[in-house]
Amino acid sequence: MTFRARHLLGIEPLSPPEIVSLLDLAETYVAFNRRTVKHSDALEGLTQINMFFEPSTRTQSSFELAGKRLGADVMNMAMAQSSLTKGETLIDTALTLNAMRPDLLVVRHQDSGAVNLLASKVDCAVINAGDGRHEHPTQALLDALTIRRAKGRLQRLTIAICGDIAHSRVARSNLILLGKMENRLRLVGPATLMPAGAADLGCEVYEDMREGLAGADVVMMLRLQKERMDGGFIPSAREYFHRWGLDAEKLACAKPDAIVMHPGPMNRGVEIDGTIADDINRSVIQDQVEMGVAVRMAAMDLLARNLRAERGARAAEESIDV
Amino acid sequence: MTFRARHLLGIEPLSPPEIVSLLDLAETYVAFNRRTVKHSDALEGLTQINMFFEPSTRTQSSFELAGKRLGADVMNMAMAQSSLTKGETLIDTALTLNAMRPDLLVVRHQDSGAVNLLASKVDCAVINAGDGRHEHPTQALLDALTIRRAKGRLQRLTIAICGDIAHSRVARSNLILLGKMENRLRLVGPATLMPAGAADLGCEVYEDMREGLAGADVVMMLRLQKERMDGGFIPSAREYFHRWGLDAEKLACAKPDAIVMHPGPMNRGVEIDGTIADDINRSVIQDQVEMGVAVRMAAMDLLARNLRAERGARAAEESIDV
Amino acid sequence: MTFRARHLLGIEPLSPPEIVSLLDLAETYVAFNRRTVKHSDALEGLTQINMFFEPSTRTQSSFELAGKRLGADVMNMAMAQSSLTKGETLIDTALTLNAMRPDLLVVRHQDSGAVNLLASKVDCAVINAGDGRHEHPTQALLDALTIRRAKGRLQRLTIAICGDIAHSRVARSNLILLGKMENRLRLVGPATLMPAGAADLGCEVYEDMREGLAGADVVMMLRLQKERMDGGFIPSAREYFHRWGLDAEKLACAKPDAIVMHPGPMNRGVEIDGTIADDINRSVIQDQVEMGVAVRMAAMDLLARNLRAERGARAAEESIDV
Repeated sequence: MTFRARHLLGIEPLSPPEIVSLLDLAETYVAFNRRTVKHSDALEGLTQINMFFEPSTRTQSSFELAGKRLGADVMNMAMAQSSLTKGETLIDTALTLNAMRPDLLVVRHQDSGAVNLLASKVDCAVINAGDGRHEHPTQALLDALTIRRAKGRLQRLTIAICGDIAHSRVARSNLILLGKMENRLRLVGPATLMPAGAADLGCEVYEDMREGLAGADVVMMLRLQKERMDGGFIPSAREYFHRWGLDAEKLACAKPDAIVMHPGPMNRGVEIDGTIADDINRSVIQDQVEMGVAVRMAAMDLLARNLRAERGARAAEESIDV
Repeated sequence: MTFRARHLLGIEPLSPPEIVSLLDLAETYVAFNRRTVKHSDALEGLTQINMFFEPSTRTQSSFELAGKRLGADVMNMAMAQSSLTKGETLIDTALTLNAMRPDLLVVRHQDSGAVNLLASKVDCAVINAGDGRHEHPTQALLDALTIRRAKGRLQRLTIAICGDIAHSRVARSNLILLGKMENRLRLVGPATLMPAGAADLGCEVYEDMREGLAGADVVMMLRLQKERMDGGFIPSAREYFHRWGLDAEKLACAKPDAIVMHPGPMNRGVEIDGTIADDINRSVIQDQVEMGVAVRMAAMDLLARNLRAERGARAAEESIDV
Repeated sequence: MTFRARHLLGIEPLSPPEIVSLLDLAETYVAFNRRTVKHSDALEGLTQINMFFEPSTRTQSSFELAGKRLGADVMNMAMAQSSLTKGETLIDTALTLNAMRPDLLVVRHQDSGAVNLLASKVDCAVINAGDGRHEHPTQALLDALTIRRAKGRLQRLTIAICGDIAHSRVARSNLILLGKMENRLRLVGPATLMPAGAADLGCEVYEDMREGLAGADVVMMLRLQKERMDGGFIPSAREYFHRWGLDAEKLACAKPDAIVMHPGPMNRGVEIDGTIADDINRSVIQDQVEMGVAVRMAAMDLLARNLRAERGARAAEESIDV
């Protein structure tokens, strides 16, 4: 079953077959991107606008490259500094952008739900590039693709997600996706960084890293926001690393062939030991970046197909009305 | 009569037939931009550089999209932060840019006349994207196209321009264009924001909004710069809205089918009531944004044609000389 | 002999025939860029990423235009403001970028040697766009092309490099290139801005401008960093201009047909008199900017050819292995 929606706002509404079809297309883009000549016309003549209300060089670059390689006309708007936002509501901004007739809007926003609101006001396809603590669907998809390539499957794996779960949209989208694919999920981290009701999410919850990692196939570390430290959540970088930072000794509790993931950018020596991060036999962190471009190309390609189909159908309907 | 100039620096030198030919071409680009595939080769192989000495996300985006959709190689230069300007005169900067052999330069500058000076130093076509209190020709052209589409004509209309007239290049370019097309023009706003000699511009001048709007076909609101408030010009946002902000009650003085315009970004609750701005039966504010891209495509397309003709003629001349 | 390297990290490893072949190709791009339609497919489908850890509007623009005109998919990353660098080492950043599968990385960095380090970690071609006080190879190449066009040769010329030699990678790369081409080189400037061991570089060293310029074919001025003034290096802008600023009287010591160069941006009235800078019979400063785009196109074109050849050879080897 192909992905048929207008937007990609979250993992929540996707069915397992839709996820698989997206990953299968992304797989073809992995090979495509490894060629020297890597430019297609899948989005030729379409306009993609990247609106990052919250700056993120890494994610924006990934979407920008994805769009350019697919032949779109790509425009970045640095919304954080933009006069567009002065005195304007988010909806004003959305309507203004919409009037420029984009086909794909890639939006990151600091508020949960802001991207869904914006999507309800525009005529084009919207991709959520991260909204507040809500969803970050392309991150979960790129993580899924990375896992599937490393482990040969995306089911029946024991996956430990470790660190600041409470504030992480990356964790949230991953939990939803990996849960849909029938994996055994564990949340590992300090109680102060665990979401309320974590136990009801169908996950096992651990405060102790060694217990949480025991027998894991996948160890997914999260980025620790500096502002969580010394702010009541956790004591200090040194103490955090001691208890929850991934080092060789803690990793030894996981399966011998367990892979290590991190969405980046990493705080070496805080949530992860540099040696582990650089160990090409265990770490798939660079693969995650590579899969990111491929997954975004697949998502934009599919959304563009849906957009063409929808507009074609509407045009046909209108001509019948006449 | 087609538009034949090298540059588009202002509305002042344009004849009514030139304006009409520009709007007619823009009209074709409105339809073009509504397609899913909207990429032409009108500017294929030409280099467009956007130099915004004064930042403006909205206007720069409009020019960037216009150029990309026409197939130009487009480069943005954030001149406000640029080291290019450190210790350099505007003319140094112009000559440096010129040496990179652009074909189209889109320039916004805080000083009136700066864009004309720059245009006199370069070999390419220059578009004024707003200079000080002087001109903003593409804004006036997009407003004209919006009016023509909404009212079916661009002549014999009663048009009220309201707010901070004195400091507005938008007002100035609009007054010139709409005056050339034989409309009845009214300036409405506080005396402190009225230009000296307003009465000699061939306009009717009103301080009272209800009187100024009586029987108007078009109500064009201007953006109020926050720095005008409490600075001696006007008392406060609340007081301003009470006397000159457009609300349903004041708008009721205009014709029943009067349209409402605003160049954006809007200060809701200061110069315009949010409900009016969002009323799709009255407000054409989103149309203005859409027309903006189309008008800029038309202007750049025509300037590129003129540039090719001029260079072709010069090359022919030089070969005859030999 | 064609340039065969994977990267362009400095002038040091280049042989005179390699330099000449690069300049010859650049010469064809000078003519190309003077056309109205100036877009080729030399880099079609390749991804170019510009990473400027130290901002430089002028140099980045030159590389951006070069890549776009050659048909590459070009992406700028403002590394100075980037969250990519937060808590990440330079190598993390390099590996992250590398995972996005670029073909050409253009890198400027404030630390000498940083670009070489980065190049050792990635699979693509790297161009050094200036690293610390080390090298700035495309600047030396554009200067060489400018000299060769103005003087008809790049050998047996007396070239005076004037100003802040000690802190200048521009001076360093130029000294290496012009030395390889067998020119007579002079360093002119205050003793405090002369590198240690200047006399051992095979150059004549002068503190007096008139002596240093006597009989020179080329007078190459350097930009004076404001922070050198009143910081112990030199007394003040006024005093500096009096002793080492290029004016008509000092220039009269050089050959009557001597050319004047400056890498820009200029401090008029500090290191150079405005009248000299604008004298189109002496100053080739605008030519330098024009040659900059052409030289960068040539360098990227050659690197892309080498990359294709290398990858083709590797693929052939791997298929033989199988």
